[in-house]
Amino acid sequence: MKSYRKELWFEVSARRGLLNITHQVEACLAESGVREGLVLVNAMHITASVFINDDESGLHQDYEKWLEKLAPHEPVRQYQHNNTGEDNADAHMKRQIMGREVVVAITNSQLDFGPWEQIFYGEFDGRRRKRVLVKIIGE
Amino acid sequence: MKSYRKELWFEVSARRGLLNITHQVEACLAESGVREGLVLVNAMHITASVFINDDESGLHQDYEKWLEKLAPHEPVRQYQHNNTGEDNADAHMKRQIMGREVVVAITNSQLDFGPWEQIFYGEFDGRRRKRVLVKIIGE
Amino acid sequence: MKSYRKELWFEVSARRGLLNITHQVEACLAESGVREGLVLVNAMHITASVFINDDESGLHQDYEKWLEKLAPHEPVRQYQHNNTGEDNADAHMKRQIMGREVVVAITNSQLDFGPWEQIFYGEFDGRRRKRVLVKIIGE
Repeated sequence: MKSYRKELWFEVSARRGLLNITHQVEACLAESGVREGLVLVNAMHITASVFINDDESGLHQDYEKWLEKLAPHEPVRQYQHNNTGEDNADAHMKRQIMGREVVVAITNSQLDFGPWEQIFYGEFDGRRRKRVLVKIIGE
Repeated sequence: MKSYRKELWFEVSARRGLLNITHQVEACLAESGVREGLVLVNAMHITASVFINDDESGLHQDYEKWLEKLAPHEPVRQYQHNNTGEDNADAHMKRQIMGREVVVAITNSQLDFGPWEQIFYGEFDGRRRKRVLVKIIGE
Repeated sequence: MKSYRKELWFEVSARRGLLNITHQVEACLAESGVREGLVLVNAMHITASVFINDDESGLHQDYEKWLEKLAPHEPVRQYQHNNTGEDNADAHMKRQIMGREVVVAITNSQLDFGPWEQIFYGEFDGRRRKRVLVKIIGE
């Protein structure tokens, strides 16, 4: 069994944003030399997500609006967590809806994807450097 | 390490519906010959889910109503994504709540499940053929 | 390839509660002897979650309030599922938002975590003994 590990670093300049990280994960897979196996891609921070969906800018605007409706940032005082000096309680909730991680099959040295699947880093409390972990096991 | 891959195809005749696919996944597992390992089951389309819950029809009606409350289909014009000619933006959201994938332990050649766990394909934009990927690794 | 399996049992005395189970998962990992691989941690019951977030009590109160807003327990008659004699339909929904499982990378015999990642058991229909499965594969 082979294993491979890499951290990807991102800094989103706004509080929230979505980054397509599919190519970085593909580069990890090429570097790993794994032909058959699984790749785990997870946010290492608890106010960010890794998820798979469509790379369509209108949809990304819809996600922004929808997540703000389900877990609004303001008023920050509605959340107990923000009494600790943080203002990111909403980011902890948005991340639960969008998810921490994805597990993707590796087949014939490729990400085994359907036609529109793309991997995104979802930042909900940005303006600082944060990490995503890529872990590959297989052979 | 053994690996196994199969695509399962489904066509839900309505826009939305839930299908119990546990037996199909069990058939894949038997075919793979894997005794100890992990199985990944994921939707290959970004408007569908694979999730684990209870096979109870009342609950499935509750999910339908609840998802429509959290991410309503109508009015379709409320979503930027639908300006692309689609009417399925809500399906991209419902899928995030219900999830893209499950990872299930394989122990003694069986899905290692609690008493009520069943695997479902959740369709949120149906009336066409769509796929689920089953990937098994182990020995 | 090594594999390891253990069930962790929990009984939350209230209907809902969050338990930090990171140390129990670390003990499983030490017992497994796996240095490189993946660990799957999943609720074996369909009204409970395993998820990764922050061990901060204010945030846990925020989750309780937020989940009750998105999927309220009362009135229990709003849910078809509760016509079966259950009163836990809301728990099946809360579990979908918080998730069934996490997959965590194992690197150098450790859970490969960011600075604040902790594993939680999320109970949404407690007052009875329920199980979490820990499955480890690797070498």
